[in-house]
Amino acid sequence: MSIEDEITKKAREAKKASLRLANLSTDVKNRALIKMTNALEKNSKRIIAENKKDAELAIKNSVSSAFIDRLTLDEDRIKKMASCLKEVARLKDPINEIVDSWKRPNGLIIQKIRVPLGVIGIIYESRPDVTSDAIGICLKSGNSIILKGGSEAIRSNKILVEILSKSAYSVGIPKGAIQFIESTNRNAVKIMLRLRDYLDVIIPRGGGSLIKFVAENSSVPVIETGEGNCHMYVDKDANLDIAYKVVFNAKCQRPGVCNAIETLLVHKNIASSFLPKMGKMLTEAGVELRGCQRARKILKGVKIATENDWKTEYLALILAVRVVDSLDDAIAHINKYGTMHSDAIITENKKSAIKFTHEVDSAAVYVNASTRFTDGNQFGLGAEIGISTQKLHTRGPMSVRELTSMKYIINGRGQIRT
Amino acid sequence: MSIEDEITKKAREAKKASLRLANLSTDVKNRALIKMTNALEKNSKRIIAENKKDAELAIKNSVSSAFIDRLTLDEDRIKKMASCLKEVARLKDPINEIVDSWKRPNGLIIQKIRVPLGVIGIIYESRPDVTSDAIGICLKSGNSIILKGGSEAIRSNKILVEILSKSAYSVGIPKGAIQFIESTNRNAVKIMLRLRDYLDVIIPRGGGSLIKFVAENSSVPVIETGEGNCHMYVDKDANLDIAYKVVFNAKCQRPGVCNAIETLLVHKNIASSFLPKMGKMLTEAGVELRGCQRARKILKGVKIATENDWKTEYLALILAVRVVDSLDDAIAHINKYGTMHSDAIITENKKSAIKFTHEVDSAAVYVNASTRFTDGNQFGLGAEIGISTQKLHTRGPMSVRELTSMKYIINGRGQIRT
Repeated sequence: MSIEDEITKKAREAKKASLRLANLSTDVKNRALIKMTNALEKNSKRIIAENKKDAELAIKNSVSSAFIDRLTLDEDRIKKMASCLKEVARLKDPINEIVDSWKRPNGLIIQKIRVPLGVIGIIYESRPDVTSDAIGICLKSGNSIILKGGSEAIRSNKILVEILSKSAYSVGIPKGAIQFIESTNRNAVKIMLRLRDYLDVIIPRGGGSLIKFVAENSSVPVIETGEGNCHMYVDKDANLDIAYKVVFNAKCQRPGVCNAIETLLVHKNIASSFLPKMGKMLTEAGVELRGCQRARKILKGVKIATENDWKTEYLALILAVRVVDSLDDAIAHINKYGTMHSDAIITENKKSAIKFTHEVDSAAVYVNASTRFTDGNQFGLGAEIGISTQKLHTRGPMSVRELTSMKYIINGRGQIRT
Repeated sequence: MSIEDEITKKAREAKKASLRLANLSTDVKNRALIKMTNALEKNSKRIIAENKKDAELAIKNSVSSAFIDRLTLDEDRIKKMASCLKEVARLKDPINEIVDSWKRPNGLIIQKIRVPLGVIGIIYESRPDVTSDAIGICLKSGNSIILKGGSEAIRSNKILVEILSKSAYSVGIPKGAIQFIESTNRNAVKIMLRLRDYLDVIIPRGGGSLIKFVAENSSVPVIETGEGNCHMYVDKDANLDIAYKVVFNAKCQRPGVCNAIETLLVHKNIASSFLPKMGKMLTEAGVELRGCQRARKILKGVKIATENDWKTEYLALILAVRVVDSLDDAIAHINKYGTMHSDAIITENKKSAIKFTHEVDSAAVYVNASTRFTDGNQFGLGAEIGISTQKLHTRGPMSVRELTSMKYIINGRGQIRT
């Protein structure tokens, strides 16, 4: 069978299963999730053995240590994957929720109810934990799933899908609901992106270039995730004690993730009182600063920030610093260079806070708090499958409810339109 | 300036205006809509004169009479366009609605508020009334709009945009919020479909081939609209008096629209009692019937329905008829051939009704009522910009609320993540 035929067949099976999965009881879905949790823990040795083969090959191909870190599974990480599935089992089932209901003057009763999206394609890179998180969240929201992971994690993903789908099917999840595309051929992604007849949405998870490729080439609707060029603006009316603490946290607590900040904007009135101590704290933590001309007059010996720095998601201990003339300039900078992910203002001025939160065009806008909270668990939504940075469908962290659509059910007694 | 530069410039202006439009008061938006209403009525003669030139050229190019009908404006149609704008002014402003709000254990207060999508591109065919409806609905929902209408209506659209945008800008709508692409070059559409940096969504309105072209070639997110291969299933437990009336209405009341039915499915147990009278009613109204083998045994002299008939949105007085063995077969037929628009069951059996509404995978599923009600006004949502047949973002009739997104606003007192 050609790769195209194979992928199309899997997509067709996923679509078929999705129609039954949509009407499955919460109880069956939760039992599947618990069974999957146990199976992960019981089979951890087998999973780690397969993962080791992936990791060894990756080391041989001398990829970066960050890459190896994302790829590697150990007992602890498998426990975390299992506990994520258990948590998804505890989440409220979003399906069949009556979101709204009303009666028309002609007697028609209109109900708007929550239904699954149908079939969700996940295209991701080297993290095998995405495999189990995505399967869990998709099943709980009644969706079939088609997984296409990175070739570097192929053995890990294969055994994970084998263990998880066997558990799921054994308690009543319709066969075909979990599909895994083994081919590591580059064409496989392109083929997935054209399957409009079977896939309802594709969610790319990974670096900016993967997301861009999927968004630009897919005829299946896409939810873009994760690229985060995030900002923090320290206003002239900031409480500087809060500013030191929150800026430091947003940059340093975990610099490799999408909700860490990449640019610090500082109002000119407080730059000379705020920046010296802030700069020292950051530099001592190993952060490389890059500044605009005005920032460099205060932060001695700092490299100049170029146009490219304002655009870059470093995902590393680097921070661009710019002194701005006004709140308006800070907002304009963020709306020009940001990726509409997470941005924050530090201020005690309520009017400035309201202006900032309304005019900054991002998924999550913070006042006096770290941008690091943009996360399904931190928001209280439960486990997440990514953070949407687009405006269509859903924005911010996506958990089970965000993977649903609506349907109208209309009950009548023979009404006709005149 | 090249066409590409011109369109990009317009899109950039629309984006810039959208940031201000997003925070405009309801009052300014409503005043603009009322001013636009009055301007349409005051300038109806000028509009009709320009429209006449379009219509004359179309007649010369011998397009179909249905096409000429959609293109032509008269005093009555302009009054209808004006009253639609007035109705949009009366609709509740969806922007800044606090959809949800909660406090986290760490004290963070999270609000989820409704915001505009940003910039909406509308690609449409020959109906100039879409121009004013779309401008009204986009402005009320705080979105900038970029219009690309069919070349046949170019003069009508141009004067409409001129009149409407002048009115809007005169009362405070930010300049640039309404953009019109004059070029009738085919490339203009392709250029629009690549402007991911400026457009948040494209909504195609028109025939199936236009919608397919846009959905398959756009890197900007798309909301598909309107293609409606709709079904009515007359169950073995149907009240036949309701069936005659509702089937007739769903086919004949206005056959050229997306929510009219194209296929009638009939349970085998009632086919011989139901079909003769139903067939007579339809035939007398000028409907051409095409039947499966079993239907043709009852409906004498009827042409055979082919696989292609089950797939076709006739938009005309033609109806395919199929006798099915069971409710399950009816559901399977609809899920296989339908476009997930509007489908109905006629039955007195509550269990069958519930099964049908849950298992038919369409935007609107009816029990004992005509599919012709799938419409923003008929649902009570107000004027609509189209009917979404996809699952992502929104399904069914789209009015002002459906053209919005969400944003999280998080207020803290120096919280950091540990």
